Parts: sequence; structure tokens; C-alpha cells
Amino acid sequence: MFLPIEWLAEGKVRYLDQTRLPQEETWVETADYRQIAEAIRQLQVRGAPLIGVSAAYGLALAALESKAADLQGFRHDLRIAAEELRGTRPTAVNLSWALDRTLHTLDGVGTIDEARSLAIKTARAIHEEDIAANQRIGEYGAAIIPAGTRAMTHCNAGSLATGGYGTALGVLRSAWTQGKLEHVTATETRPLLQGSRLTAWELQQEGIPFTLIPDSAAGLTMRRGGVGAIVVGADRIAANGDVANKIGTYQLAVLARENGVPFYVAAPTSTIDLAVATGDDIPIEERSADEVRSVRGTPISPDGIDASNPAFDVTPSEYVTAIITESGVARAPYAESLRAVCNPEKAAAGG
Amino acid sequence: MFLPIEWLAEGKVRYLDQTRLPQEETWVETADYRQIAEAIRQLQVRGAPLIGVSAAYGLALAALESKAADLQGFRHDLRIAAEELRGTRPTAVNLSWALDRTLHTLDGVGTIDEARSLAIKTARAIHEEDIAANQRIGEYGAAIIPAGTRAMTHCNAGSLATGGYGTALGVLRSAWTQGKLEHVTATETRPLLQGSRLTAWELQQEGIPFTLIPDSAAGLTMRRGGVGAIVVGADRIAANGDVANKIGTYQLAVLARENGVPFYVAAPTSTIDLAVATGDDIPIEERSADEVRSVRGTPISPDGIDASNPAFDVTPSEYVTAIITESGVARAPYAESLRAVCNPEKAAAGG
Repeated sequence: MFLPIEWLAEGKVRYLDQTRLPQEETWVETADYRQIAEAIRQLQVRGAPLIGVSAAYGLALAALESKAADLQGFRHDLRIAAEELRGTRPTAVNLSWALDRTLHTLDGVGTIDEARSLAIKTARAIHEEDIAANQRIGEYGAAIIPAGTRAMTHCNAGSLATGGYGTALGVLRSAWTQGKLEHVTATETRPLLQGSRLTAWELQQEGIPFTLIPDSAAGLTMRRGGVGAIVVGADRIAANGDVANKIGTYQLAVLARENGVPFYVAAPTSTIDLAVATGDDIPIEERSADEVRSVRGTPISPDGIDASNPAFDVTPSEYVTAIITESGVARAPYAESLRAVCNPEKAAAGG
Repeated sequence: MFLPIEWLAEGKVRYLDQTRLPQEETWVETADYRQIAEAIRQLQVRGAPLIGVSAAYGLALAALESKAADLQGFRHDLRIAAEELRGTRPTAVNLSWALDRTLHTLDGVGTIDEARSLAIKTARAIHEEDIAANQRIGEYGAAIIPAGTRAMTHCNAGSLATGGYGTALGVLRSAWTQGKLEHVTATETRPLLQGSRLTAWELQQEGIPFTLIPDSAAGLTMRRGGVGAIVVGADRIAANGDVANKIGTYQLAVLARENGVPFYVAAPTSTIDLAVATGDDIPIEERSADEVRSVRGTPISPDGIDASNPAFDVTPSEYVTAIITESGVARAPYAESLRAVCNPEKAAAGG
């Protein structure tokens, strides 16, 4: 299995710098959590689940680095590191989820050494659980994809966006393995081209037949009948089923409904934020206008013009056919079904 | 007024190579109609009305170039030139319209010299009429744009897409002059970036406030309430009101209806093809996949992948609020209203 990040025995993290793909496969090793924060900020690692995994590894590096003399000072160092990591990107909830889970785990420790080893253990558990969750998402998703499906996906929700395997691409990977997937249309996903750079790279490595299109050709592709299902990832899902995901997701969902194409969101339950009532309450990251005014360093517009670069949009739940999680497939009404997948034991006991 | 092409007294054509914009303003002079054909094919000149004007000038150059000894040979030379020009791009109907009008005008001439001067005269008339039509489109369009409008446009339907002034941008230019336009959102229009390269260049020169967005941010921009009207151009309009225009237009129209935003098409009547019943009969140009796999020469995807590059799509007339022409504003049912604007004298006499 391809892992975009890993913990090295000598107390370092090794990750693939995704900004260099597909032209270069550059791996970076670091023992400095600040470099992990910078890697998240610069999208060297990206994708909600992978951001969560990376942040947990970052906190583990901070635990190793701390020179504190007592547990109080150690906890102070970790909180500072956690806030630096948390501030890198606002939309994906997995970031805060992974940091809070690690900090909470350390609440009961008695020594700094114990805390250090628990921080590493927790980060590795978050990583392994994410991979396992992706594989279950893949199974649940493949089960609802009909044989012979021509699918469409947006951005990259693959191995490169997660601990490994992928959410939306995990579903397509499982469907492909089961012989149910015929073809994938990948949208290029301007401005940062995660579709043409990353999804195309993964699909090519996997040998899955696919076609790259500009974002503006998605509507025509659906109207021509070339799409049987759309599967995308998510950066945060509100309690009512509204989905924050890569800019352009909302318009794919509207076009899907207009053309009778089912629209699926694949995400681990760590992406569901029951504390947020609707998508209106999800912060949308606005990134540098330079990402719109240029492509891979080449200017494409006159100097000095105004450009807008929202990194995400919110798709209202009414456009979402189903949300595929590692605990099952949630459908409308989402207020109930999302609570159920977030508390599978309780739901099983209750119903 | 800015003219992207002009006839020079010494029997040459001078045009702006739009592929170099916005970084370079490169003007090309030629006496060879084959170079005009190549300029159309390479999108050095583009936009349905400008393609028509350029083709007419190309035919005038062919008339000057012909070494034929008699009128029969001269007509043969012109038909060969016309077919070369006609074959450059399949979707815009203005191309055939301008060529056929010029050839038809020469039917009754008695000498080669007379034919040469009439070919030049016809090309210049087509150019001047296009500018005048754009200005009338601008007036009709501005009249239906409410004061304080924040508009959105796609691709480039400005001075650079026409003989001068523009269709969709002509409407916005007129509304701006009348103080009714507050702001324009310009979509970048991948793959060839006519929005970020050309529309941004024109709006900047005009001093109209605008914001550039990736194509994938159009839905969010509408949903946030930032758009009061969408105005686009057209490459061919079928008798039933279906509109072929730059790839991505269809999805903007669907999103406009979903968000309660009026969707206007601005085009001269030379763009209306009453011989084509519906949009299904309009040929859609498929351009090189390299335009998708790279941006301005920089590769953005793994080598050797499959990509699709339809240059246009068809927006069904049900999504079109109105079609603004130089002879008035057509609304549904388009079968009647488009016939009326194409035959304004008859319509006035009849009704």
C-alpha cells in the first residue's frame, strides 16, 4: 500500500512533498513539528484525513523535542505546538480532531517519557485507523456502485489525501478491484490542479482507465451521459449533512442532480463535525490570489488584478445522495443518520 | 475604439495575436489568406464575430492574390480559399456566414478588378456592421440590466472577440458607461484562459472593477449572492434558442437558474443559424488534449494520460432568460422571437 507519510523509528517523520507531483517524487524527512505545520500550510501534505494524520505526527515530534523539566512545562510546550499546527488551515475538521484526541490521551500520564511514547503511539494509531477506515469506506462504497459504472471525481481524495488508500478514490479503487468500475473522469481542479497532478498520477499507477477534463467540461460530460456516479471526499460535514469540500464540489452536485446522476461523499467519521449545525457555520479558507493569477509559477493574467481564491465551498445536503463512512452509509435525513454512524455502538444498541 | 483587426490600404490585414496576451501585445501584418486561416485555427484571432470578420478579410486577400486569367478561374481560386478558411473551426456559424455572404456578393460582377474591389468592400462592410451591431446589442442589453448590477461573464466576448466593442462585454461596457454596472466577476475559462488573459485585460484597460475566479468558484460566487446577472456571448444559436458557446457556459446557466440569477446571451443575428433546429445538430469542436495537459506550455499532468478538450457546449434554451441581438431582445418562445430578430422588417410589417 502507498503511504504518503510515515513515522520513522529514529523519531522523524517522512512525507511526500505533493506540490512537486507529478513531475518529481520528492520525500522530506524532518524532526521539527514546525516543518510539518509549514508542510500543511503549503499543501505539501493535503486532504482532510492526511492533514489529521500529519498533525498528530507533528505533535509527536513536539513531544520528543520538548526540553521541559516537568509535566506542566511539557503540556505547555505541546499546547503551543498544537495551536501552531491547528492554525495552518481552517476548514478541515480532522486537524483539530487529531490534535484534541492526542492532547486528551495525554491527560492521565504520570511522566514525560510516558507522555512521549503515548503521543507517538496515538499518532500511529490515528494513521492506522485512518487506513482501516478508508478500506471499510471502500467496501461500503463499492457495494452501492453498480457494475459497469463510469464515475467522476473532483480534486484528490486518494492515497495522497489520507493515511493511505483514499476516501473517494478508495471507493473507486475497491469498485475497480471488484470489476465494477469501467472508467473515471477526473476534473483538473484549478487553481492547484490536484486532479491533473495527483488523481491522474494515482489512477495511472493503479491502471484504472481515466480521462482528465477541465473543470468547465464537467457539465457537458454529464449531459452527454458519460457519468453514472460522482464520488468526492469532504473536509468537514455539518450535523445536517452539508458538506464542505474542494471549491467546485457544489457546482458538480447541482449538475449531478440536474442530470440525474447520484452524488456520493466518502469520508471517515472524523470528518463529521456534529458541533456544527449547518454548512453556514463552516469557515471557508480564502487562499492567496496568486494561485489564481498564475499556474505553477507562470503568470496567466495582467499584473495587479483582483482575484478571489476560496479553497472550499459548501454543498447543501439536499444535493447529496449518500455519505459513505467507515461505519456505514448515511442517507437523508442526515441529522439522524450522521449521529448513528458517529456512534455506531449506541445506534446498534438502540435500533 | 479598440479594433483587434484592420484592413490596411496597401492590401494587407493587420491583427493582434491574442495568444500572446496579456504578457505581449504583438501585431501581425499579412497579405496571405493562408496565414489568416492559420491565425483562426491557432486562436490568434478568436470569438465568433471576429472569426467572421477575419474570414471575410482573408477572402479579400485571396481575391488580391489570384493570378487567374478570367472570372471563372478567379471564382475557382476564391472557392478554394473559402473552403480552407471554412475548415479552420467548425462551431462558430459566423465563419460560414461571412464567407457565403462575400461569395454571393461577387455572383453578379463583370470583371476581376470589380470582384476584387467588391470583396474588399464587403469585408470592410462586414467589419463595420459588426461593430455597429455590437453597439446596438450594448444599448439593448444595458436597458435590461438593473442599476447596481454585479455581473458575471465567461470566456471573452469583448472587443477581442468581435470586430470591436464586444457582445457580452459590449453590454457590460454600455451598462458601465450608463453607471448601472457595479462589478464584474470574470471566470478564468480553462483550458485557454480567455477570461484571465483577455477579459481581464479588457476590463483593466476600461477601468471596470472586476474579480477573476477559477471556473470552479462560479457556483459559490452565485450562492454567496455576488451575481445579479450573467452575460455571455455565443458561437452559434439554433432556431429553438439552444446556445453553443465556450465550454463551461452550460454549467453556468444551470447554476444561474438554481440560484435565481438571470442568464443572458448577447450575440449578433449573424450568430443565429435558423437552418439548425436544435443544439443537438451543432458540431462541437474537440481540440488537442495538450491544451488540457498543460498550461501556457507548462505540463500539469503525468505524461501520456488521456484528456478530453471539447471547446464548446450547448446550453438548452430553457436556461436562457433572453438573447440580446442588434435587432432587439428575444425571449421564449425562441422559435418565434429568433425568426423575428433575424427578419426585423418582416416582423415589423407583420406585427
